[in-house]
Amino acid sequence: MVAIRGTLKGRDVISINDFSREEIDHILKVSDCIEKDLDSKFGLLSGKILSILFFEPSTRTRMSFESAMYKLGGRCINMGPTELTSVKKGETFSDTIKVISKYADVMVLRHPSDGAARYASEISDVPIINGGDGTGQHPTQTLLDLYTIKKESKLEGANIGILGDLKYGRTVHSLVYALSMYGIDMTFISPPNLSLPEEIKEDLDDKKISYEECERIEDVIGDLDVLYVTRIQRERFPDIMEYKKVSGSYKITKDMLEEGGKENLIILHPLPRIGEIDPDVDDTKYARYFLQTKYGVVVRMAILGLMLGGFE
Amino acid sequence: MVAIRGTLKGRDVISINDFSREEIDHILKVSDCIEKDLDSKFGLLSGKILSILFFEPSTRTRMSFESAMYKLGGRCINMGPTELTSVKKGETFSDTIKVISKYADVMVLRHPSDGAARYASEISDVPIINGGDGTGQHPTQTLLDLYTIKKESKLEGANIGILGDLKYGRTVHSLVYALSMYGIDMTFISPPNLSLPEEIKEDLDDKKISYEECERIEDVIGDLDVLYVTRIQRERFPDIMEYKKVSGSYKITKDMLEEGGKENLIILHPLPRIGEIDPDVDDTKYARYFLQTKYGVVVRMAILGLMLGGFE
Amino acid sequence: MVAIRGTLKGRDVISINDFSREEIDHILKVSDCIEKDLDSKFGLLSGKILSILFFEPSTRTRMSFESAMYKLGGRCINMGPTELTSVKKGETFSDTIKVISKYADVMVLRHPSDGAARYASEISDVPIINGGDGTGQHPTQTLLDLYTIKKESKLEGANIGILGDLKYGRTVHSLVYALSMYGIDMTFISPPNLSLPEEIKEDLDDKKISYEECERIEDVIGDLDVLYVTRIQRERFPDIMEYKKVSGSYKITKDMLEEGGKENLIILHPLPRIGEIDPDVDDTKYARYFLQTKYGVVVRMAILGLMLGGFE
Repeated sequence: MVAIRGTLKGRDVISINDFSREEIDHILKVSDCIEKDLDSKFGLLSGKILSILFFEPSTRTRMSFESAMYKLGGRCINMGPTELTSVKKGETFSDTIKVISKYADVMVLRHPSDGAARYASEISDVPIINGGDGTGQHPTQTLLDLYTIKKESKLEGANIGILGDLKYGRTVHSLVYALSMYGIDMTFISPPNLSLPEEIKEDLDDKKISYEECERIEDVIGDLDVLYVTRIQRERFPDIMEYKKVSGSYKITKDMLEEGGKENLIILHPLPRIGEIDPDVDDTKYARYFLQTKYGVVVRMAILGLMLGGFE
Repeated sequence: MVAIRGTLKGRDVISINDFSREEIDHILKVSDCIEKDLDSKFGLLSGKILSILFFEPSTRTRMSFESAMYKLGGRCINMGPTELTSVKKGETFSDTIKVISKYADVMVLRHPSDGAARYASEISDVPIINGGDGTGQHPTQTLLDLYTIKKESKLEGANIGILGDLKYGRTVHSLVYALSMYGIDMTFISPPNLSLPEEIKEDLDDKKISYEECERIEDVIGDLDVLYVTRIQRERFPDIMEYKKVSGSYKITKDMLEEGGKENLIILHPLPRIGEIDPDVDDTKYARYFLQTKYGVVVRMAILGLMLGGFE
Repeated sequence: MVAIRGTLKGRDVISINDFSREEIDHILKVSDCIEKDLDSKFGLLSGKILSILFFEPSTRTRMSFESAMYKLGGRCINMGPTELTSVKKGETFSDTIKVISKYADVMVLRHPSDGAARYASEISDVPIINGGDGTGQHPTQTLLDLYTIKKESKLEGANIGILGDLKYGRTVHSLVYALSMYGIDMTFISPPNLSLPEEIKEDLDDKKISYEECERIEDVIGDLDVLYVTRIQRERFPDIMEYKKVSGSYKITKDMLEEGGKENLIILHPLPRIGEIDPDVDDTKYARYFLQTKYGVVVRMAILGLMLGGFE
């Protein structure tokens, strides 16, 4: 697919970096229109088919896309777990993409390898959405994160803290690049061995985005409008005791928020969480992570609708 | 979800005991209307999404719900086998329910633990249908059983025999409670170690429902209007020889029915059967178990339509 | 289901041999109409349900049927992998067919045993499509092969070469029978131990169809209008070295086609391919195998539409 700047119709959605700030603003605006009048959008994608190719499992990304497609009147076909497919018979990735693109109007791909989505977009007949590839990009997650921040707090002038595994988390990298387009101050909170990669920090320096790095959430909680929490994966630590020490110290609790947080602080998380946020936070005014999930469906409706020409 | 007696709209369907006889009668009446004019119901649930969360597999319950939803114009999204999901990553049951309730308008849950559906209903944003939890309830199965009895025999004044594993079978327990609302005489046929639990018999006594217990189907077959057959699971017997002796003696055959059964006797079974009913019964006038499967779709259409406000 | 010659409505699609040449011509003609005006066909099967029962996995046959059904406005319900179903609990094949036929309007079955689809059609309430059974038939693949040949080359008067495992390949057997109805000359290219079964050759003799057999593709490539390539499965060779020798010598390359092929030669393949056709052929004028996949959806739309009365 050839990328034509200025409209999303027929375009691939591979990396948040492929989009200008104006394009992102447009997607967020369309999302807002959809959210306000959800029912009237049913039928816009009647007869359209989304093909789901997940080479690694991700239940909620899949279900969120299915829900979005169905709410627009479209359908989905799912390749299913790769161990049951022709991939196992020895078919090349390239052939799989070419064949399945014949069955559908748009495809969402998830793959363990960096760059898989870009490669797929070069051989597919139909536009590709990157549903997460390797430690690379996951652009629809980023767009829903932006939408949630815009709706529940503010994008311009906000102080946004990002906490957790900043080294390997693909969600985080996409988000940092997107926030940098909005000139947003960022605070990165992580253990030293999981801090943001140097090349991303250099990119921020080039763009003259100011940021702060720290190890303890308590030191910065009072400055934040938005705290974006991510998971710290056990696999990143050679020593289980090191992991336990760190993972415990990054746990967000109701007490922490009520004692140190701003009045309008909101907490986001891409989910699933495994203890990074205490369940007693769920019912506080700070929690927005389940709402964020709900907004994800709306934003994916906007993206699918724009790609397939259902919206302008 | 708050349960509002008198209408099913927005209500959970967790246990047959949550419903009054009038409410059950209404569901059966709506089912009858749907069955008589199936095609005109298409489109009533356009744009609505049923989320399927099965923490243990049940192909036919799932397919029956899907068929029902599709015949009303709705869609389904399926979490899929739990070994492929965030559940495996360590996410809590509570978080899974909260997240997936954001993707859908109604949810059907199947779970190996008693009480899982009730708990889910307390944390979900959308109404929950219990698709079977542990040895507890399976209310839509009960409603389809009642519908089949009503259509193919009679509910009031019938003599209904229930055969098989009456101790652990959740289908049986729900059915017994429901039949007791109709003041129906029941005959329980089972090996002694698999007889109906004492507490259920006490409940029947409290309601002044008369019932009989016996070990041999031959002793009572002539008295029955309806014979509801269930499976005796091998796992219930420590000794495989004990199992074989018992399972053989509870096999329904064409000869048995033709020699001893009433003229209008009907045979039901929740299926799958593993030899409890000889295949030579399938083509006799007694067999209603495949029809029962078909009625299941109609009854689930009624339930989904009522819950989502498609019907009054 | 009773087969009524002359119309496809309500009929099973088990073997290509059940159809007359006139009936096949009609299916191909309907396919052509659909292809020319795809969008206008949406909604023809609204409210209709296709049940998918695959007792062995086949991702692309499944996805092709789903795509076809969805493009006509219908829905699909999928039994899923058999290891998760009642089949595993010990239910008979017959019961599974009877039950699942209650949920749907038409069923597509794939099964490892020869004759499974025919048997299913005798016990099902709804029409059955054979999606491949054992080494037997796979009639919708044959119909899409014919459609591709007709559209991209010609059916009458063509010289069609079929290459690969001609002994066990079910795709090949169905295709040979179908081509014989059109009085087409055929050339069979295979290693000696994988040549076309004697009984099929006798059938061709009876019908006075002329054919040629050879071992080397280079000897006949210049005579062919169509080359239909199939996979040679490793499992057919007791000795892995024998397999490697043979599989290499049947590889189609760009050079081979440009040096020896006719101007209008086209290459087909049922896919997936595992090296039988070099990827450098993909971008040549000869390649039609991905287009063939696309035509598969159109032909299956025709078949489903005709069976369910959506088309005349």
